[in-house]
Amino acid sequence: MQEINKEYIDHICELLESKQASSILKLLEEFHPADIAKIIEDLNTKEANGLFTLLDDETASDVLVELDEDIQQKLLQDIPATEIYEKFLEPMESDDAADIINELPEDVKEKVVNILSESKEEEAQDVIELLDYPEDTAGGLMAKERIQVNINENVSKCIARIQEAKEELDDIYAVYVVDEEEKLKGIIPLQNLVLYSPKTKIIDFFESEIISVDTYTQAEEVARIMKRYDLVVLPVVDSDGILVGRITIDDVVDFITEEAEEDYQLASGISEDVDPTDKIWVLSRARLPWLLLGLVGGVAASKVIGQHEASIKIYPEMAFFIPIITAMAGNAGIQSSAIVVQALAGNTLGESSFFAKIFKEFTVSFINGMICSVILLAYGIFFTDMLQTALTISISLLAVIILASTLGLAIPLLLQRIKIDPALATGPFITTTNDLIGLAVYFYIGHMMYNIPF
Amino acid sequence: MQEINKEYIDHICELLESKQASSILKLLEEFHPADIAKIIEDLNTKEANGLFTLLDDETASDVLVELDEDIQQKLLQDIPATEIYEKFLEPMESDDAADIINELPEDVKEKVVNILSESKEEEAQDVIELLDYPEDTAGGLMAKERIQVNINENVSKCIARIQEAKEELDDIYAVYVVDEEEKLKGIIPLQNLVLYSPKTKIIDFFESEIISVDTYTQAEEVARIMKRYDLVVLPVVDSDGILVGRITIDDVVDFITEEAEEDYQLASGISEDVDPTDKIWVLSRARLPWLLLGLVGGVAASKVIGQHEASIKIYPEMAFFIPIITAMAGNAGIQSSAIVVQALAGNTLGESSFFAKIFKEFTVSFINGMICSVILLAYGIFFTDMLQTALTISISLLAVIILASTLGLAIPLLLQRIKIDPALATGPFITTTNDLIGLAVYFYIGHMMYNIPF
Repeated sequence: MQEINKEYIDHICELLESKQASSILKLLEEFHPADIAKIIEDLNTKEANGLFTLLDDETASDVLVELDEDIQQKLLQDIPATEIYEKFLEPMESDDAADIINELPEDVKEKVVNILSESKEEEAQDVIELLDYPEDTAGGLMAKERIQVNINENVSKCIARIQEAKEELDDIYAVYVVDEEEKLKGIIPLQNLVLYSPKTKIIDFFESEIISVDTYTQAEEVARIMKRYDLVVLPVVDSDGILVGRITIDDVVDFITEEAEEDYQLASGISEDVDPTDKIWVLSRARLPWLLLGLVGGVAASKVIGQHEASIKIYPEMAFFIPIITAMAGNAGIQSSAIVVQALAGNTLGESSFFAKIFKEFTVSFINGMICSVILLAYGIFFTDMLQTALTISISLLAVIILASTLGLAIPLLLQRIKIDPALATGPFITTTNDLIGLAVYFYIGHMMYNIPF
Repeated sequence: MQEINKEYIDHICELLESKQASSILKLLEEFHPADIAKIIEDLNTKEANGLFTLLDDETASDVLVELDEDIQQKLLQDIPATEIYEKFLEPMESDDAADIINELPEDVKEKVVNILSESKEEEAQDVIELLDYPEDTAGGLMAKERIQVNINENVSKCIARIQEAKEELDDIYAVYVVDEEEKLKGIIPLQNLVLYSPKTKIIDFFESEIISVDTYTQAEEVARIMKRYDLVVLPVVDSDGILVGRITIDDVVDFITEEAEEDYQLASGISEDVDPTDKIWVLSRARLPWLLLGLVGGVAASKVIGQHEASIKIYPEMAFFIPIITAMAGNAGIQSSAIVVQALAGNTLGESSFFAKIFKEFTVSFINGMICSVILLAYGIFFTDMLQTALTISISLLAVIILASTLGLAIPLLLQRIKIDPALATGPFITTTNDLIGLAVYFYIGHMMYNIPF
């Protein structure tokens, strides 16, 4: 397979420049739509548009599904709604079409939905149905297309259905078995289907033990179920148990990856999904919010320290250890918040009570705080002549580590309880909070140790 | 399906306590092995052992595959090697058996490998072959079991092969087509197989365009390929193009999840994969290393500041802004390192040169640094009377943000170049480095601004 590297992209750009459409199409022939999508993502907007319009409608539709959302929208922005529907959306599977419609600008979206509503075709109705489900639920992840047979039919009916669906469905792993009311009764994995003769009745060999979810099951739960039971496809039923769609593992893999990336970005103080290849102002915008938060926190910290101006003049060594307090408060808080956020995401938090968790965190941070404090104290005693300062810092450090760790645990748990994404309480948020609390504690202890009146 | 909650676990513990084996087995009957694994993971070691020994060999083997590695090893530690092989490993698929053997203590592992070597069975040889591949390669991810037919055979042969393998293989999605030398020639998705009559020759309808990897392809690349092309299974060939195994998506999903968790932990200063339910000393151990790094960094920072004791005595307001410098250096560095680490993981770094990337990062951080500096300067001018300090801080802040961001970009790129995991350069490592550099810059600029001699 041809590797897509910089030389190759440059070569395609040159061909685009000199308008050699047929050479380009010949080059692209050997590529999977996902590869053409990757090439388009490496081009600038004008080149991307140029290449995209060269593609025949079927390929263009396949490529569109694979593109990054923002590039999808850029390529579609000057195309009329009717054309978007007929050329690109109609050949797609229902879930892909719904995903793209959901990202369209409101006015275009409305027009496309109108076209869909007026269409008599079942596929159009399927897409409209999917648009109603929230994105992060089983309904939002599922496709309507599936192979479904009545429990009283036989193997040849299954095969006929697969034959009919062959063009529109390229990932069939199982046939779903329903009763007269279309309620899900079971499943026939294809590997079993091939073993029976066409006349065999479904009722004689289908599997009735089946794992399914309903349309409002949360996407996290869907991912957990498919991961735990190693499923490649999961049927979705409505509240009456009627089969309405199926979720394939590729969409769940995308969901898992996106969720992990989002948590990583939140922990790193980035507010949008950005790549190094994004435009400068996009990169800047994604990073500015948390920098501004840090700025506000820093100004607040200067106020906290400013209240102790007099003591710093007398004991400037108090200032030397400001970074150790803020750094350790930040590190300890991030560690405990990261562990709890990951456990919430993976559902491995355990069954103990809130206070039992706080107490455990207190113990862990007490142990680590003591180790750090004792090392720092020993360093102070043996390598400096600032004994009183060493004692002040050590005591403060212990207090700060315990406080920061416990807050790092408690805040995500409380956010989760009031239905806010606990991952918000990681990264710059937790470090900024802990900087302030840490400094207040440090100077308070300093006051007591040096016996300075407030 | 019965939910596994605390009450349910307690109920099982009571039954274990009162040795009601048959009641327990009856309860567990309705569960999937993955669910029984989850129950065992919620028990203490003694209870887990008690429950595990109750299971029949086949169930025990299925459950073992689903368990966390450390619990697997605990359950196996008192069982002789022969028994481990005969009871648990023999019924497993080759990749699961190899994974478990790889985690065994060296002496037990050696004994098991000896038993395998002496076995005449093909399955045993398969496992031995798999043990030779590094864990993070296609060879380490693949299973040997697959459905393989010669290109000159017909559909009925495919079906016969599926029938033979039915017991040992519960996830068949495709039949692989090879030539006389066992070189991979193509694939027949099961959904196509069902459409042809038993007498149809394979050569007349198999798909010859096929995506495969070789045994030494890196696991990251395997994940990328399966994700990009939405594959549920990927054939693996050796250097001669001979088909040797296949990778299923469930193993790749586990790999993706583990990698994301690892990067998240590194960014959060946690050195082991821990859950809130782990023992206190495990939690403490996972967090201590980066706290100690923070401690060393903090002591070094106190040295940097200590050199400016005289200036702090005269201008104590220099101390007020220490946290803003360290916080912003930390935040800016973490942001840029996180973006590059994520891009390296997702292979979305783009094709520009190292210096082009540095220049772009410089621009982004210059913009964000200017915005933050101007805001801080305005605050200093309008809300405080410390004009000179405000100017010093603002200039320092700009310099520190640019420096920290650029380092945050450069360090992971350099680590990648010398084949060290770039994710190491996130979290506490980057904040500690940037604290020190930031403080040095800040006090240097302060010196110049206040015109204090060194």
